[in-house]
Amino acid sequence: MIIDGKALSNQLDISMKAEVKALREEGIEPKLVVIIVGNDPASQIYVRNKHRKAIKLGITSIIERRPADFTQAELLALIDQYNRDDTVHGILVQLPLPKQIDKSVIIRAIALEKDVDGFSPENVGKLFSNSHEHYPVSCTPKGIMTMLAHYKIDPAGQHAVIVGDSNIVGRPMGALLLNAGATVTYTHILTQDLSSFTRTADILIVATGVAHLIKADDIKPGATVIDVGMDRDENGKLVGDVDYDQAKEVAGAITPVPGGVGPMTITSLMQQTLELTKVANHRALEPVK
Amino acid sequence: MIIDGKALSNQLDISMKAEVKALREEGIEPKLVVIIVGNDPASQIYVRNKHRKAIKLGITSIIERRPADFTQAELLALIDQYNRDDTVHGILVQLPLPKQIDKSVIIRAIALEKDVDGFSPENVGKLFSNSHEHYPVSCTPKGIMTMLAHYKIDPAGQHAVIVGDSNIVGRPMGALLLNAGATVTYTHILTQDLSSFTRTADILIVATGVAHLIKADDIKPGATVIDVGMDRDENGKLVGDVDYDQAKEVAGAITPVPGGVGPMTITSLMQQTLELTKVANHRALEPVK
Repeated sequence: MIIDGKALSNQLDISMKAEVKALREEGIEPKLVVIIVGNDPASQIYVRNKHRKAIKLGITSIIERRPADFTQAELLALIDQYNRDDTVHGILVQLPLPKQIDKSVIIRAIALEKDVDGFSPENVGKLFSNSHEHYPVSCTPKGIMTMLAHYKIDPAGQHAVIVGDSNIVGRPMGALLLNAGATVTYTHILTQDLSSFTRTADILIVATGVAHLIKADDIKPGATVIDVGMDRDENGKLVGDVDYDQAKEVAGAITPVPGGVGPMTITSLMQQTLELTKVANHRALEPVK
Repeated sequence: MIIDGKALSNQLDISMKAEVKALREEGIEPKLVVIIVGNDPASQIYVRNKHRKAIKLGITSIIERRPADFTQAELLALIDQYNRDDTVHGILVQLPLPKQIDKSVIIRAIALEKDVDGFSPENVGKLFSNSHEHYPVSCTPKGIMTMLAHYKIDPAGQHAVIVGDSNIVGRPMGALLLNAGATVTYTHILTQDLSSFTRTADILIVATGVAHLIKADDIKPGATVIDVGMDRDENGKLVGDVDYDQAKEVAGAITPVPGGVGPMTITSLMQQTLELTKVANHRALEPVK
């Protein structure tokens, strides 16, 4: 089974568009602010893609571009302005930031209820404590949970193995799966005999940035394989951390690259913007179908 | 090898006593406030033990006892009073709390820099994000890390298996081990074939509250086995989650119950009080030897 992130993303976009329209008819205007400092080329593309997606769904999107020599104090003042603006529901500061700015100070400055990337320590703490409250979570793992749910893959009692323990993907992914009842193993660069872990995974999440790290032999027959990688092979072709052509013969379900996790991340950002909008307006949080 | 938590705790107490004396000579008085609401008998004992230990080390200990019908607003006001009191370095609200009080509201009310139990979501988030800043952590896992370090058991590259994913022990324990470079597996009540995981553990941490859950067969020969359990067997005898008599024949290193993790938890609480005292007074944080 191919887990088609692109198709699911398109389907969710249609639902969200209708939902935004309904909110607007009630006088609620979902609004996302994306702040970008400096000229990192990849960041420019990410920000543009987020903006286009928001516009497509009817979400009001504001991009605040600032020069590479923008100071931390100036950035904090800008965030504060949007924290205090009740018409804004999500604030995202595009990473990386120039070196004169301390990322951890900036992330913590965003109001918890507008932290649409879910990177604030307090929101991370709620995730890892499986809090019963609403809290935003990192968008890539959020999108993966949505894919699993859509394809009726229930993590409860399954062994989920995470390859790569970054704060943006691996760690929150493991917490979401643990909260959903999975047995969770975190593996990473220091793990000895990685295959001995990946081969026991019912759900294998790979987020390392190493092209084709995971081969067919590393996969338990029938496993669900989620590939977060966006790597370039020797010919410059976009490939994943999983050797898809071999892996698809062994896996029970697998995400392609491109067209798997990627499209779901940006869709999850939009879902989270809508969720924060609804929480701010005391609306029930029904999951987008 | 027997990991003697009692002996290590005694040794650390001697160092801390000297350290407190030195701080006092500089005019710094380490001060811990423990708040207990209601009459839970176990809580009364825990609070008394903490108080006695603090006094023994020269740490000023204040116990604030309040009746079972104390309101949440009253408790918040009491916490606020100590948050604003610069002479207080650690605030601990003994759990459980009576049902009219929302634990998560109370935990979040304690100033982050006085959160001596390390339960606040922001401190938990820093732990799970492996923040480079100082933050307090839950005392039982902290004590276990101290034991591992003392016995020269380096988690880096080892497979650590956590049995029991509570917010107080299992989850923060896994985060500390992950931050120390271990491959970490979280198992729990929904885990299928628990033995298949425990048998691959180089470091096995058991915190389930189920007497003698782990037998010799569940342990990899030579593994380090840390038993957090404090259970009663059918004869009312205090035993651990690990069947110690059999397990000690297989394990490379093991904590007894009693005399293992237990004494280290309270010693870690005192260490953390001293650490918060030093941070508040801009002193360097040298680990207690």
